[in-house]
Amino acid sequence: MSHNSFGHLFRITTWGESHGPAIGCVVDGCPPGIPITEAEIQSYLDKRRPGQSKYTTQRKEPDTVEILSGVFANDEGEQVTTGTPIALQIKNVDARSKDYGDIKDKFRPGHADYTYAEKYGVRDYRGSGRASARETATRVAAGAVARKVVPGLRVRGALVQVGPHKIDRANWNWDAVNENPFFCPDPKAAEIWADFLDEVRKSGSSTGAVIEIVADGVPVGLGAPLYAKLDQDICSGLMSINAVKGVEIGSGFEAAALSGEENADEIRNGPPGWPTFLSNHAGGILGGISTGQPVVARFAVKPTSSILQPRNTIDKDGNNTEVVTKGRHDPCVGIRAVPIGEAMVAIVLADHYLRHRGQTGQDAAQDIDANLDWLPTDSSS
Amino acid sequence: MSHNSFGHLFRITTWGESHGPAIGCVVDGCPPGIPITEAEIQSYLDKRRPGQSKYTTQRKEPDTVEILSGVFANDEGEQVTTGTPIALQIKNVDARSKDYGDIKDKFRPGHADYTYAEKYGVRDYRGSGRASARETATRVAAGAVARKVVPGLRVRGALVQVGPHKIDRANWNWDAVNENPFFCPDPKAAEIWADFLDEVRKSGSSTGAVIEIVADGVPVGLGAPLYAKLDQDICSGLMSINAVKGVEIGSGFEAAALSGEENADEIRNGPPGWPTFLSNHAGGILGGISTGQPVVARFAVKPTSSILQPRNTIDKDGNNTEVVTKGRHDPCVGIRAVPIGEAMVAIVLADHYLRHRGQTGQDAAQDIDANLDWLPTDSSS
Amino acid sequence: MSHNSFGHLFRITTWGESHGPAIGCVVDGCPPGIPITEAEIQSYLDKRRPGQSKYTTQRKEPDTVEILSGVFANDEGEQVTTGTPIALQIKNVDARSKDYGDIKDKFRPGHADYTYAEKYGVRDYRGSGRASARETATRVAAGAVARKVVPGLRVRGALVQVGPHKIDRANWNWDAVNENPFFCPDPKAAEIWADFLDEVRKSGSSTGAVIEIVADGVPVGLGAPLYAKLDQDICSGLMSINAVKGVEIGSGFEAAALSGEENADEIRNGPPGWPTFLSNHAGGILGGISTGQPVVARFAVKPTSSILQPRNTIDKDGNNTEVVTKGRHDPCVGIRAVPIGEAMVAIVLADHYLRHRGQTGQDAAQDIDANLDWLPTDSSS
Amino acid sequence: MSHNSFGHLFRITTWGESHGPAIGCVVDGCPPGIPITEAEIQSYLDKRRPGQSKYTTQRKEPDTVEILSGVFANDEGEQVTTGTPIALQIKNVDARSKDYGDIKDKFRPGHADYTYAEKYGVRDYRGSGRASARETATRVAAGAVARKVVPGLRVRGALVQVGPHKIDRANWNWDAVNENPFFCPDPKAAEIWADFLDEVRKSGSSTGAVIEIVADGVPVGLGAPLYAKLDQDICSGLMSINAVKGVEIGSGFEAAALSGEENADEIRNGPPGWPTFLSNHAGGILGGISTGQPVVARFAVKPTSSILQPRNTIDKDGNNTEVVTKGRHDPCVGIRAVPIGEAMVAIVLADHYLRHRGQTGQDAAQDIDANLDWLPTDSSS
Repeated sequence: MSHNSFGHLFRITTWGESHGPAIGCVVDGCPPGIPITEAEIQSYLDKRRPGQSKYTTQRKEPDTVEILSGVFANDEGEQVTTGTPIALQIKNVDARSKDYGDIKDKFRPGHADYTYAEKYGVRDYRGSGRASARETATRVAAGAVARKVVPGLRVRGALVQVGPHKIDRANWNWDAVNENPFFCPDPKAAEIWADFLDEVRKSGSSTGAVIEIVADGVPVGLGAPLYAKLDQDICSGLMSINAVKGVEIGSGFEAAALSGEENADEIRNGPPGWPTFLSNHAGGILGGISTGQPVVARFAVKPTSSILQPRNTIDKDGNNTEVVTKGRHDPCVGIRAVPIGEAMVAIVLADHYLRHRGQTGQDAAQDIDANLDWLPTDSSS
Repeated sequence: MSHNSFGHLFRITTWGESHGPAIGCVVDGCPPGIPITEAEIQSYLDKRRPGQSKYTTQRKEPDTVEILSGVFANDEGEQVTTGTPIALQIKNVDARSKDYGDIKDKFRPGHADYTYAEKYGVRDYRGSGRASARETATRVAAGAVARKVVPGLRVRGALVQVGPHKIDRANWNWDAVNENPFFCPDPKAAEIWADFLDEVRKSGSSTGAVIEIVADGVPVGLGAPLYAKLDQDICSGLMSINAVKGVEIGSGFEAAALSGEENADEIRNGPPGWPTFLSNHAGGILGGISTGQPVVARFAVKPTSSILQPRNTIDKDGNNTEVVTKGRHDPCVGIRAVPIGEAMVAIVLADHYLRHRGQTGQDAAQDIDANLDWLPTDSSS
Repeated sequence: MSHNSFGHLFRITTWGESHGPAIGCVVDGCPPGIPITEAEIQSYLDKRRPGQSKYTTQRKEPDTVEILSGVFANDEGEQVTTGTPIALQIKNVDARSKDYGDIKDKFRPGHADYTYAEKYGVRDYRGSGRASARETATRVAAGAVARKVVPGLRVRGALVQVGPHKIDRANWNWDAVNENPFFCPDPKAAEIWADFLDEVRKSGSSTGAVIEIVADGVPVGLGAPLYAKLDQDICSGLMSINAVKGVEIGSGFEAAALSGEENADEIRNGPPGWPTFLSNHAGGILGGISTGQPVVARFAVKPTSSILQPRNTIDKDGNNTEVVTKGRHDPCVGIRAVPIGEAMVAIVLADHYLRHRGQTGQDAAQDIDANLDWLPTDSSS
Repeated sequence: MSHNSFGHLFRITTWGESHGPAIGCVVDGCPPGIPITEAEIQSYLDKRRPGQSKYTTQRKEPDTVEILSGVFANDEGEQVTTGTPIALQIKNVDARSKDYGDIKDKFRPGHADYTYAEKYGVRDYRGSGRASARETATRVAAGAVARKVVPGLRVRGALVQVGPHKIDRANWNWDAVNENPFFCPDPKAAEIWADFLDEVRKSGSSTGAVIEIVADGVPVGLGAPLYAKLDQDICSGLMSINAVKGVEIGSGFEAAALSGEENADEIRNGPPGWPTFLSNHAGGILGGISTGQPVVARFAVKPTSSILQPRNTIDKDGNNTEVVTKGRHDPCVGIRAVPIGEAMVAIVLADHYLRHRGQTGQDAAQDIDANLDWLPTDSSS
């Protein structure tokens, strides 16, 4: 067990505070021989990086990753994983700790200030310390490695709701996701969100969001009953992200309102080893084990608790007071949660891929490309 | 790591198949000196036991629990835990394996038949084998032990939605929960559900449901950032239950539509060490750590996939065919999921209570009774 | 983590006390499709079974194993593992708890009475409860499964020292091991031990012993630096056996007196992928990873603390007193430790085989038979 | 599970290669509020630091430790642990990779070259990469934190054998340990070793050694049956150190030759809760649980495999060849193993202290000072 590790055979351990000298993670158990470079990891970090639009925090962090161990040149001179721990480190360069003097002794509502103080008796209050979403950069870095562990795996995410505004799923276009500052697959919704978020931002408020992650190319058989279910571990991984309050797989909470015949995905003859499911209410997982269909997960992020409006609270001596949270904050942390959610799903899949291979000896020799061909394009149908 | 264990310091390992000779679990790491009897565990099993109303499966299982180890008489002659593994065992007595001959070679839609077959190459198909909800009896037994680990803890559950029919939260009455066959806290909703479920049952169909679990008496400080968050582990525990497709904490998915000022629970001066929160959108957890407010979790259960209507599927050779699932099934597995959900939340809380005590040395010396007095009665407000 | 589990991908969890109704273990993570029967497991239990000669305890336990889950008939009708937890159970049938009334309140020197009492405050004193070597029957049962996980693996053990009397390694004959009541590979030493142990037994005393375990057919590459070394986990497994006070690999403590050129095993060209080592001081492990040579481990067992001679001790109130340990005890627990040590080594190798396959994707396609052919017959040279 | 982590509640994860930019570790689960500074950690690193005498490697590494997270000023301005992960980092500054060009393609006997190559297919051969004892610096750093977790704990080590030369235990003097370059408690033996090691060093050879670690101030009750025995975890920790081939507790392998009445430590009335043991053959542990007596462990280190004499081996293509290991090496790695062994024992004790507190709620309120007073001074008696 560990309080700051995640995964089993593919395992990450993260460390660092928002305003400390650096943050980092150790990726342990990665298979050897996987080509990986700092540039490749950086490309994912750049998606999560703050300050890229007016809709995210203005803190200027280059989030430059360094690989400190676990990668070495193979006989062909290519940098590959060696099977030993991969230490990834990101220096903090734009911390403004003075912004946080006011909250040293006050507990911000919706934040972990009170609970950390009660649990540990001491806390690094600067930029929320360990409770800061800054830690998630290390997850994205680790996720970049994880993505390469499962041959043929593709993990993509999108924002599907901002505040009360949901996308129209009929407009879903994966290409659109990278063409707006919201990772929104519905160009029309993106316009509505832009107006909505301008308003939220100007009023010093914040808003929640829902993110959807879709993984395709997932081999059949990942996961295990019971207590090591693939959906269970995906939910665990997503719930471990700051501000997440709900997680669902496939039809999720909507399944509660369905009948058995509506919900259970019928099966038809398909390519050998890859039957065709006529729908994907299951989100690609049955009995905790992947079906070969796309794995579909969604998670809800609460509105940022750091807002400019004064709020009732107490100080550490128990006195009633008010607090206003300055500092540079995301009006909607859900936006940057997209690459983070992708990373966590990739990490869970990498872990279960290795666990499955360990227990059963099965590798991914199945024709993943064939699989992708016949899969329904609307993974959430 | 383990595929069939859950928890860390308080840890359960379960075994057994639906139609094998018995099912059981080993509870490891339980503190010594806790009084526990078979009768006490039985009282919780009796809540989950099948065949108690026409709305659940008619399989007649007494679910009689035996304690095989880990409990011994103390100096006062009271049976108490000894700190060594507690083996709990329940014999299967009413398995009708012949009902399942038809599905030996066919994959039932919505079931784990296909994924088990692909992953393991062999499966105990009788009554779904390991994938059967029968395994959950062992969780309830383990949960009965877990409830006694945290002094002052009370974990209660209720069904809050059946199919499309939600309760009216204004009618919430905990006393009503045990007065209808649905664990429904809203007597009026219970009547609607009775009619709805009669219809579902007669038509050979099934329906989904949503369950809410509320734990009060939870000390401040349980959980840990990051990857050992209390909410993360609760979600993991609930998602490990058969048929669960979504999990949420506090306001959950609704938080996505809120603003920061609506969502973040304000704090006022309360009893020493127990500030008063003016609302509980957080569901009793901030930054992954308990606040002392009631912990509130909800989970969605899909409709039973075992239905009498013929469904398209394939057999193990890949041929198209149809399947009808006979056997004795719950039209709404959500009903019996209530005591199961309670058990999983109790297990997570017991585990984190020990972990917290281990890391910080804090015990539960806080005045839990005082806590319960001032807590808002409507834990979901 | 767990207090009563061992291993990771291949993992056992044991439960039960000496005089409780039964003892058992859950084997989790076993690969599916491995043929296994109760008779096969029984054959190993019969080696460890008490009461087979005058040199072991006269407690009459048939040690009959039952498989309660995790095994099912495959398409050919053969009983095979299903990949789900295998529950193994052995009933206790010859407990004589009245022998232990005297030690209820006294701490026997060399026993765990005092430490259990201080740690847990309550203990099952009958037959030493959880601290009894009776628990090791479940290890032997689990080991019988583990042996089948690694293709081509053979794990054998022998007693190499009883009290001050060591074997003459020049006489080593594996066939002799099963031809005397001591698992002794040196027929001449067996004669000396028979006399020595008769004397020990008659005087109500006891003696220690050293056991050697040799595993051949171990593929290259099992284990991992650092903290998951194969030798580390073998030592951990052997030290987890009751009464073990020392463990060593290859040349072990004698390596301390050697020079680098004496100790480091030189390498010569051998079959592809299987170089010839000119000696095996390393005990088949370099840098925590198996070399393909036989894995050689030894462990020292202290003399049984249950002796008939009166010993100084205190009672639970701290008063000085004397204690005489009646009951039926082994004068040399080292004898029956041989099959137990074999089981633990097999369990570690099975676990690391799965972990290695998980991380690297390598299976055991190497020609193990070829390997066995050219290996030096004297594995301890 | 993890390949590069150790411990459970108090858990270290290490990373880094001998010639990479840095090495480091993450200490997770440390209790909050423990004062710790870089200077304090440095004092232990300085004991292990290379190049301090002619008897250790001449590589000049300052081994300067940096704390990158997990420590913050409390209200009194003192730097204390916050309960979040403590990242410790040490830069490599004196790597001479060119020394290792020759071994890029050759497998050094006694080294992990061959096994790494077979397992991973790629390896950082420079200075042995991950298999280098350089990694142990991070253990010493983590051990400095661990020492402070258990109130009143003192962990000390000494070299008790170099090559064939053992100390005379009658001369044991803890004060002498820091007055010679060998951590030798017997001043006379130190003189013999000096001559012996000069010879070894000049001849380009190397020698093995035995180290003894003694921990006093260990509370009663640490450890747990079975598979989480304190002695088991100490052995696991010591065996995880490079070059260790054997481990023993208390009388260890000598116990095999003893009778039950010689070995079992008698008990007499002592201070409340702290009975007096008349000897300590048990090494402070009975049934896997600490007795309150000093915990005594010994481990054997093989002679350094890096020697200047030419040795038979093969290259990576399987061709017979010779290899000479240049580079800067310790003629006796056992010397610097003393602080490393201390660190590992401290880490195990810290972990079990937290586990014990978690399960039982017992803290260390016992009067440790009183304990130290009456304990036999000769812990190995």
